[in-house]
Amino acid sequence: MSYSPLIDDLIDALRCLPGVGVKSAQRMTFQLLERNRPGAARLATALSKAAEHVGHCTSCRTLTENEQCFICADKRRDQQTICVVESPADVVAFEQSGDYKGLYFVLMGHLSPIDGIGPAEIGIDRLLQRSAELSISELILATNPTVEGEATAYYITEQMRSRGIAVSRIAHGVPLGGELEYVDSGTLAHALKGRRPID
Amino acid sequence: MSYSPLIDDLIDALRCLPGVGVKSAQRMTFQLLERNRPGAARLATALSKAAEHVGHCTSCRTLTENEQCFICADKRRDQQTICVVESPADVVAFEQSGDYKGLYFVLMGHLSPIDGIGPAEIGIDRLLQRSAELSISELILATNPTVEGEATAYYITEQMRSRGIAVSRIAHGVPLGGELEYVDSGTLAHALKGRRPID
Ligand SMILES: [Zn+2]
Ligand SMILES: [Zn+2]
Repeated sequence: MSYSPLIDDLIDALRCLPGVGVKSAQRMTFQLLERNRPGAARLATALSKAAEHVGHCTSCRTLTENEQCFICADKRRDQQTICVVESPADVVAFEQSGDYKGLYFVLMGHLSPIDGIGPAEIGIDRLLQRSAELSISELILATNPTVEGEATAYYITEQMRSRGIAVSRIAHGVPLGGELEYVDSGTLAHALKGRRPID
Repeated sequence: MSYSPLIDDLIDALRCLPGVGVKSAQRMTFQLLERNRPGAARLATALSKAAEHVGHCTSCRTLTENEQCFICADKRRDQQTICVVESPADVVAFEQSGDYKGLYFVLMGHLSPIDGIGPAEIGIDRLLQRSAELSISELILATNPTVEGEATAYYITEQMRSRGIAVSRIAHGVPLGGELEYVDSGTLAHALKGRRPID
């Protein structure tokens, strides 16, 4: 297959997007070049700005271009509770459920020894430090209800317990094997309310 | 929903891609920022270069950053035959079938009066001019076997006939209602061989 070099490059580059194969990349290329050049230019700018400026929140590790994300920077949030999630999308899901007023900690993944992802890679040191700084009264575990998410929750529970911090797990209600960010707001609010201490 | 402004911008901008909704755009954003910043930077460059430099081939209208595409510029191609297709992807499909040595003309769409797409928008003037310049002996119609593709083929046939140019339509074999770029090379080669004069 071969178009002109700039078109081939664009088709190739689009394939770095998850779920985009050759055929979709071709469609995207033609549609952008034929019908939406302003969209292509805007996407180019958004990509390079984000790739250059977005880093991690120094408090909760979520993706942000600021030193602190807007939730960590909001002093009206309950500083005594941290909810631990796997991804920035999970934070948005909780915020949309509207019931949670505490802080978050975003692991940016889960423990996965096979892939070389251990406690350091998911920021456990920072979580322990942050929990101590704030003298939190409760840590809520909202990792995904998958094998890796459960193992990660178990590991964090052990770490917190040895430091005397109360840990809870959001209630089941989140479908097992599912991904948190796809759960509807109502179910998520319900799961949060139904959390129980881990003993 | 709200992340930081640069992340929101990127999610929004990705939605200009066909088939990409909010959830996919979020996934793409996190995957690029967490795991593939070089890919994001490369995609940004490819998009802005293509949006800036890609135009249409002055001979066949396909997308290219050069004045003429590499097929039109190749003087070893049979200059007596033009195959009319709807999209650049169709050219690639024919080239992969390996049986065709003539030139192409790319309509970049099909007639669609409802959408305001008439003969001028699909370059019919240029096609007539090009056919005359080259004194072609045959025009092969390979628009998609859809209602619009057939109507476009019919319109072009009328125009060519009144100028005494022989017109043929690729054989059925391409599944009716299907899209040309998804047909396998063998079927396409077969359809091309089985073409018959329109009388
Ligand atoms: Zn934060
Ligand atoms: Zn050309």
